[in-house]
Amino acid sequence: MNQQDSGSYKAKKAFYDRVLTVYGRKPVLEALRDTHLQCHTLHLASSNRSGGIIAELTAAAAEREIPIREHSREALSRISKNGKQDQGVALDILCPAFRSLQTYLDQLSALPRQRVLALDGISNPQNLGMILRSASAGNIDAVLWSRRGNAALGPLVIKASAGTLYRAPLVLCDSQVGALEALSGRGFEICSLEAQASRTLFDYHPSGHAAFVLGNETDGVSSAVSALADTALSIPMNNGVESLNVAVTASLIAYADSIG
Amino acid sequence: MNQQDSGSYKAKKAFYDRVLTVYGRKPVLEALRDTHLQCHTLHLASSNRSGGIIAELTAAAAEREIPIREHSREALSRISKNGKQDQGVALDILCPAFRSLQTYLDQLSALPRQRVLALDGISNPQNLGMILRSASAGNIDAVLWSRRGNAALGPLVIKASAGTLYRAPLVLCDSQVGALEALSGRGFEICSLEAQASRTLFDYHPSGHAAFVLGNETDGVSSAVSALADTALSIPMNNGVESLNVAVTASLIAYADSIG
Repeated sequence: MNQQDSGSYKAKKAFYDRVLTVYGRKPVLEALRDTHLQCHTLHLASSNRSGGIIAELTAAAAEREIPIREHSREALSRISKNGKQDQGVALDILCPAFRSLQTYLDQLSALPRQRVLALDGISNPQNLGMILRSASAGNIDAVLWSRRGNAALGPLVIKASAGTLYRAPLVLCDSQVGALEALSGRGFEICSLEAQASRTLFDYHPSGHAAFVLGNETDGVSSAVSALADTALSIPMNNGVESLNVAVTASLIAYADSIG
Repeated sequence: MNQQDSGSYKAKKAFYDRVLTVYGRKPVLEALRDTHLQCHTLHLASSNRSGGIIAELTAAAAEREIPIREHSREALSRISKNGKQDQGVALDILCPAFRSLQTYLDQLSALPRQRVLALDGISNPQNLGMILRSASAGNIDAVLWSRRGNAALGPLVIKASAGTLYRAPLVLCDSQVGALEALSGRGFEICSLEAQASRTLFDYHPSGHAAFVLGNETDGVSSAVSALADTALSIPMNNGVESLNVAVTASLIAYADSIG
């Protein structure tokens, strides 16, 4: 690859890192009608019957001059990555705040003090959607999401995020362990939330970059990720309550800094 | 009624205000096995087939010396208040922090500065369960709940509350308007959460009692309740996010004071 090719490859990859392909007739129609979203291409299976919602979809795309491409049912399954639930419809949406871990690391030196959420096994789509909504609204600069271990970015997550998934500052990682090792190497303090920790989230005022790890709803943070943590933080709880919902925990992290 | 009868009536009412009747075979079995809970009476429909989970239920009750009463199917429906979903099983649980609005008002002069959540139309059981979990864990002294307008305190709420419903500081009201009028008359500042308000939740440090109103997930706070509000508060949001999940909002209210 010569330099120009390499540059064009990088630009192309950065573009595709920001593309989220949503599927299902209703989520796609809602997205096409949201003029705040940059919709890129509407994909339809040639097996779809015309009329009804398919007519609405093509009209909505035409009105916004969004290209429409027809595919075989099999090719559409490969595009949606969920042939069972795509209903013959997929839409590429450009999410401006999505980026790869490498892009995020490349940009880091120019960024102010970062607060990052690392998702280590958020398997419930409703929790993931709520986490993305709160993280987007609150003071979170990046949400580390890996396909492995976490719920997929599908219709249930979009619904639970109230559509904010498209605006979320998502950083796409291969694995949480690798991502947190990289952040640790760049000076991030890695914090895990633990009920027994004597220091509370609200007493913690990091002077540099910080990454907060959220673990699985049942099993908590994985041992490999836990071993990377520099600091354990607790959230004080009354009335013998032993834990908070993980999306609530994420929301308190997202707002703890603006309050403290 | 002579004075003694009136005293005994009041004591009896205060007792029954604290009784939550749960239903459904699995929720009841889980409650019977939670030794932190004060289970009062197990109710069974005489139509239940013996063996299986019914045998487990009676064994669990016998082990803890909890009285078992048999009823006709119809009588059991009246006890569970949900004949369609009770599966012939109901359990009275004593919830130590439940009380009526009148009892709460009677106790108020002896209580320190109060932070109250008023639930004005929380129709989604998952949201209600999460709100009760966060309110119990955080700094909320009372949650005003009325049967009218809010989700019922059934199995879905218990599950979403992770069992914390039984410990929640619930105040049972006939209506939110009446309850908030009564609190207002006792010096509470009534706060509504509004996206446009210039004052933020995190800048608000009440010197006296405060009640925070949470409205319906779609329609927000009702106009009758809104008219009672003294103060409007917002939660700052980034990235064009327009609202937060109501259970997340409740959690931020529950912890805002401990942080600010």
